[in-house]
Amino acid sequence: MATRTVLPTESQRALSTAAIRCLNVDNINSNVKAAKYAVRGELAVKAEEYRVKLAQGDKSLPFDSVIFANIGNPQQLDQKPITFFRQVLSLLENPLLLNNKDTLRATFGYQDDVIERAEKLLAEVQSVGAYSHSQGVPLIRESVAKFIEGRDGFSADPQSIFLTGGASSGVNTLLNVICNGPSAGVLVPIPQYPLYTATLSLLNAQCVPYHLEEQKAWGTDINTIKKSLEQAKAAGTDVRAVVVINPGNPTGASLSPEDIKSVLDIAAEEKLVVIADEVYQTNVFVGEFTSFKKRLRELQREAPTKYDNVELVSLHSVSKGMVGECGHRGGYFELVGFDPLVAAQVYKFISIMLCPPVTGQCLVELMVNPPKEGEPSHELYQKEYSGIREGLHKRALALYEAFQRMEGVECQEPQGAMYLFPTITLPPKAIEAAAAENRAADEFYCLRLLDATGVCVVPGSGFGQKENTLHFRTTFLAPGTDWVERIVKFHSEFMAKYK
Amino acid sequence: MATRTVLPTESQRALSTAAIRCLNVDNINSNVKAAKYAVRGELAVKAEEYRVKLAQGDKSLPFDSVIFANIGNPQQLDQKPITFFRQVLSLLENPLLLNNKDTLRATFGYQDDVIERAEKLLAEVQSVGAYSHSQGVPLIRESVAKFIEGRDGFSADPQSIFLTGGASSGVNTLLNVICNGPSAGVLVPIPQYPLYTATLSLLNAQCVPYHLEEQKAWGTDINTIKKSLEQAKAAGTDVRAVVVINPGNPTGASLSPEDIKSVLDIAAEEKLVVIADEVYQTNVFVGEFTSFKKRLRELQREAPTKYDNVELVSLHSVSKGMVGECGHRGGYFELVGFDPLVAAQVYKFISIMLCPPVTGQCLVELMVNPPKEGEPSHELYQKEYSGIREGLHKRALALYEAFQRMEGVECQEPQGAMYLFPTITLPPKAIEAAAAENRAADEFYCLRLLDATGVCVVPGSGFGQKENTLHFRTTFLAPGTDWVERIVKFHSEFMAKYK
Repeated sequence: MATRTVLPTESQRALSTAAIRCLNVDNINSNVKAAKYAVRGELAVKAEEYRVKLAQGDKSLPFDSVIFANIGNPQQLDQKPITFFRQVLSLLENPLLLNNKDTLRATFGYQDDVIERAEKLLAEVQSVGAYSHSQGVPLIRESVAKFIEGRDGFSADPQSIFLTGGASSGVNTLLNVICNGPSAGVLVPIPQYPLYTATLSLLNAQCVPYHLEEQKAWGTDINTIKKSLEQAKAAGTDVRAVVVINPGNPTGASLSPEDIKSVLDIAAEEKLVVIADEVYQTNVFVGEFTSFKKRLRELQREAPTKYDNVELVSLHSVSKGMVGECGHRGGYFELVGFDPLVAAQVYKFISIMLCPPVTGQCLVELMVNPPKEGEPSHELYQKEYSGIREGLHKRALALYEAFQRMEGVECQEPQGAMYLFPTITLPPKAIEAAAAENRAADEFYCLRLLDATGVCVVPGSGFGQKENTLHFRTTFLAPGTDWVERIVKFHSEFMAKYK
Repeated sequence: MATRTVLPTESQRALSTAAIRCLNVDNINSNVKAAKYAVRGELAVKAEEYRVKLAQGDKSLPFDSVIFANIGNPQQLDQKPITFFRQVLSLLENPLLLNNKDTLRATFGYQDDVIERAEKLLAEVQSVGAYSHSQGVPLIRESVAKFIEGRDGFSADPQSIFLTGGASSGVNTLLNVICNGPSAGVLVPIPQYPLYTATLSLLNAQCVPYHLEEQKAWGTDINTIKKSLEQAKAAGTDVRAVVVINPGNPTGASLSPEDIKSVLDIAAEEKLVVIADEVYQTNVFVGEFTSFKKRLRELQREAPTKYDNVELVSLHSVSKGMVGECGHRGGYFELVGFDPLVAAQVYKFISIMLCPPVTGQCLVELMVNPPKEGEPSHELYQKEYSGIREGLHKRALALYEAFQRMEGVECQEPQGAMYLFPTITLPPKAIEAAAAENRAADEFYCLRLLDATGVCVVPGSGFGQKENTLHFRTTFLAPGTDWVERIVKFHSEFMAKYK
């Protein structure tokens, strides 16, 4: 070990040289500076600081655990990974384990379908340590196509499927290709997952917001979309795409087939690319998920002339649903109706980053092609899957019931996704106190909540909300009811203080 | 399974609706269209088509295997992963294996340090399926800081380390923050790894090329950099950063401490951010690797006033070196001397994509903190590591010797990285034949090589080269000498044909 020399710390150095550096916060890319991403912003940073303090034995905080309800991260809380998935992945990581299959079976309970799947994937990828095809491993794209065909009843083409490092990187790719300058605009639902607005900021393109209807269970109103579109066009924006998050984030709302048709109608009439963020497609408690692809193909069958020009991209991910494998960064998107020359540019764009993580790609394969009835791992898979599903629904209902007990809080019944997004009505004194700190009132509320309880949620302003309304988004992933009661108690004290 | 309905194929649909779509290749983001990335371009696509044909039993091709020498992808060829790394990863993927440690030890040869490391990492990340901190798992950043301290003899701050999904995503982050508009420029060595030019195209920023000196073993000439810089400034470019790839890609050249000082001198005088791409830091056959960070700290100790304003970022990766785990997408960068407010913007930028793959992060930890002497896995680790290292050197020399036998081919002695980058002098008739196909002569040569031999290399034009010179880049990763002899035979026939 070489001698360690102590030099001024970064912060000391920062102070001494601030004036003579190349980069400062006022001369970097202004699009980066303008981008907002509250999900991992100030509140999340503070929550992490509290977590570290508690881990270091700090007893001065008024809570004994931090609850990260700011982000849909099931395995950070207590969701267990699905055994079949992880058994296969362990063999992909160390294929030498396959040298002793008897022990894998007898001691570790690896079923034959686990071993077969691992061998099949290994034969295709060679090693999970090798770069794959930039668009994703061919066999895995074929599995995805089969999954889509089974789900929708319409054919899917593996050549039109692009594996990604989570849906976020897919959205980044698509908006990079679609947005061709400062006048390009994209219709984005409000409230929305802030990936969309942040990426549009980075590209210096226009976010064209359309509000969802809170009073109609956060439904999509087609006239609202049309109005936003007309206003944007009148202002000189070249609106090129419409984003739909279905089921909704942060709202949990599921679109009906009729709502989906309305969006596709506008897309056909106005030549808009439809970006269907369908990562919560299995997180549905009320009604049934219908994919945009299925609905589009149905309409194309009924009225081909009208819908043949529709360009649709649908995104999916291993991070959500009952899979919940966020850390593995896997996902895909399917291009439907795109000009092949545009698809070739999409390919070139993603190839610059080489390929998505190969184990994440393999997880996509496992997600879309899980053990089937009669196969040895099916029973356990089904049990684990249903257990997670029921657990999420129970937690959503418990949280919803708690919100109903809270003064000034209104919440739509849980429908899907991983979140509730209640409205809060705060007393004028609280709003004044927030203004005195130069903060939005919902941000002020969420900060006080974190300081008092260790529960980290995200203010509604991070997702967008109608003027003069306040919300926050919380996941319902955390186990137990203790943290829910912490929120109830805090809220009642907060309301009393600012009455 | 729902009924499958056959609709027009994508290509049929494409023809019928080309005129009425929103997106076509002329109205998408022109920066995407302008970006070039030859490593996975036409040649790579064709090579993949040949591979598929061979796999399907096609006997019509004049070769029986495709050699992907276009990309540094060791585990696609025959490089085996390092056992210690993969044993730990298998436990991270399936922690239930830890329920029977005796069997892991007795049947599968997992040593105690494998089990301990897995337990330590699991305690920190909770699950590799959970999102981590956007900047990377804290414990892993601490390990990276210790590694840098051990390598350089100067302290490193975990807060300044950002884990990434491979070095490519790190470069993307940095250039996004640094480039603040169309007049921003970045000095890039020519030849270069085309990630740099492609990313600058995407950002509509200026690539300011500086040529490396082929006759001086592809060394960096400081006067060449200065000249490029002055020309760019005179043309109104705001030059903000200088990229150095050390050891070089595609050249393999290693910079001497004196060369590094020259670059740091310019950076200090001209207020340039230094982007040190050091992903090949362990792939050095000749001389010794010196990091930019170490050299900077030495100079700061000697002449603090002069060098205190230098902003340096150094990148590293699990994809290269003896690790070769490209598919896992792991890496890091260290910010040195950056304004903390700028670092905060870097953090926000990466947080929009949530976090790098967590198993890739864990591999970074294993790479920077491998088994130490006296630890149970050390002997095997050392044996595997040295075996890979010696194998690479032998292959490089064998390829180099073959090039010396080839008419019109000149090549610098292998120094490092994973590539050779020979000059080729082609007969005028070959250049005319290329022009008749509307192709650069080196591209024409590489296409004929692929068609005749199945060996895929990248034309020098993909990396940049001085006018009127021709090169190609080939990795020396493929095993055996058969493929080398295929190149020799092709070359002699090609030269005879166009004499």
